Amino acid sequence: MSLLVVGTVAFDAIETPFGKTDKIIGGAATYIGLSASYFTDQIKMVSVVGDDFPDSMIKTFNENNIDTEGLQVRKGEKSFFWSGRYHDDLNRRDTLVTELNVLADFDPIVPESYQDCDFLMLGNLTPAVQKKVIQRLQKRPKLIVMDTMNFWMDIAMDELLETIQMVDVLTINEEEARQLSGEYSLVKAAQKILTMGPKYLVVKKGEHGALLFSGNQVFFAPALPLEEVFDPTGAGDTFAGGFIGYLAKSQDISFDNMKRALIYGSAMASFCVEKFGTERIIGLDAPELESRIKSFIDLVQFDIALVG
Amino acid sequence: MSLLVVGTVAFDAIETPFGKTDKIIGGAATYIGLSASYFTDQIKMVSVVGDDFPDSMIKTFNENNIDTEGLQVRKGEKSFFWSGRYHDDLNRRDTLVTELNVLADFDPIVPESYQDCDFLMLGNLTPAVQKKVIQRLQKRPKLIVMDTMNFWMDIAMDELLETIQMVDVLTINEEEARQLSGEYSLVKAAQKILTMGPKYLVVKKGEHGALLFSGNQVFFAPALPLEEVFDPTGAGDTFAGGFIGYLAKSQDISFDNMKRALIYGSAMASFCVEKFGTERIIGLDAPELESRIKSFIDLVQFDIALVG
Repeated sequence: MSLLVVGTVAFDAIETPFGKTDKIIGGAATYIGLSASYFTDQIKMVSVVGDDFPDSMIKTFNENNIDTEGLQVRKGEKSFFWSGRYHDDLNRRDTLVTELNVLADFDPIVPESYQDCDFLMLGNLTPAVQKKVIQRLQKRPKLIVMDTMNFWMDIAMDELLETIQMVDVLTINEEEARQLSGEYSLVKAAQKILTMGPKYLVVKKGEHGALLFSGNQVFFAPALPLEEVFDPTGAGDTFAGGFIGYLAKSQDISFDNMKRALIYGSAMASFCVEKFGTERIIGLDAPELESRIKSFIDLVQFDIALVG
Repeated sequence: MSLLVVGTVAFDAIETPFGKTDKIIGGAATYIGLSASYFTDQIKMVSVVGDDFPDSMIKTFNENNIDTEGLQVRKGEKSFFWSGRYHDDLNRRDTLVTELNVLADFDPIVPESYQDCDFLMLGNLTPAVQKKVIQRLQKRPKLIVMDTMNFWMDIAMDELLETIQMVDVLTINEEEARQLSGEYSLVKAAQKILTMGPKYLVVKKGEHGALLFSGNQVFFAPALPLEEVFDPTGAGDTFAGGFIGYLAKSQDISFDNMKRALIYGSAMASFCVEKFGTERIIGLDAPELESRIKSFIDLVQFDIALVG
């Protein structure tokens, strides 16, 4: 039942056409953990922050069923910081500042009490660090999901391919699927990537939804058309957190259950973008989530009776 | 039961990364009519060609249940000709040649035998011509679907708005929905456009599917992820033809039936792009179409039981 989440816990400063934040809490493991916490109450986090990171946020993690024994707090050092500005269409953003700080030499230590985890979510990080986590687990988890990005394809392709080979599900966006495979058609890209190790590939298309490929099967989860998209930061991680959180809860890693997991992930992501940072994904209640799932059902379900 | 299709019947010369054609048969009414012919056998076409247009193609229309009494053949004149070249990603294209020829002063004459049509599909044309067709019908059809494009928003917005006001369903692409409404969010764009006359708005997103808006309801039909997209020409018209053809067949213009119609339209469009021009949408058999619909069901159907 338990889920190990590895990834950044960080500060972000975000500018969108609708406003601007000072340093707020961000990071892949933050979004993944908070999102997964709606589905499973045994989440264990491996990450690193500096002593500038607020105790109150660590308390929020703990209150949301996220065990922080594996969250290293480095005295006298600063947390990872990213700052970015979104273009008017919110589909592109420019990075203004990246300060690695504690992340520069992050050694992902897995506490003994985390060793029994059944599900592992590797948030976007140096592939070598992601690999180290897998190697440090005495028992291979039932399911390993890995997120990554084009940056590692540009500068660390060999290490990336080694790590990809060790995981069950890879989540990347459209352009990354094309870059990794050298194929423009996503169907062909998926066929190639599924020979690289993973049995499942999730292609994230942002406002255009997400595709799940496995063998010859394909499933599409839409994104919910929203009146306002306020801040896309963390949407992909929130999606991944909902996806693996639902799988960990249901203990069923069949293709059919992954379809449901993808819908839950998409629902969580649709909340995430409605406010800055993590604001909207803390404190959601069950009826709110249920009603959002119903919107997804209404959005795509149709009824055609085939003769054959 | 009968469907009146108005639009261009033309020659196209197409270049894609995969090949190049000489002049082949194209035009909105061609794709709409052929696509609709899989659903209804009473299609009536209003269009204009020159005497360079092959009799064999008119015969093909007739063999596919398309009545061509309203297809004017102008002696000594040439048919509309368009030539274009697609970029590598097939999402953008450059127009190389546009020769209006017979289209320059097209007067859409509606034969007396067409007057009883229940469904009207206005393919992309000068809005004034589209309007004239509506005005020339003695009895208002049960449903009027209108396609248009950004070109008319640029040069004939007033006429366009007058025509839009007279129709039930408007089909445009994402960028056109934004241009017409002045809203970036498609949800807000739809809300605005639905105050301009149409009760239904279909937003075509190409490889990202299509959205149907009406009142507060929204439905999403995906595009089928294909291994090869060979030539996107006519996909939007083929989609529209399947959509209105299915509605004409089933005589049901409820929102729930429009969902099905959208899926049939998407299925027809998924065939269209597999070969050059109309090649793939002539001579499809029933099992082929049925199997394609099944692919759409498999692509998006999931099973989540809600408690509430």
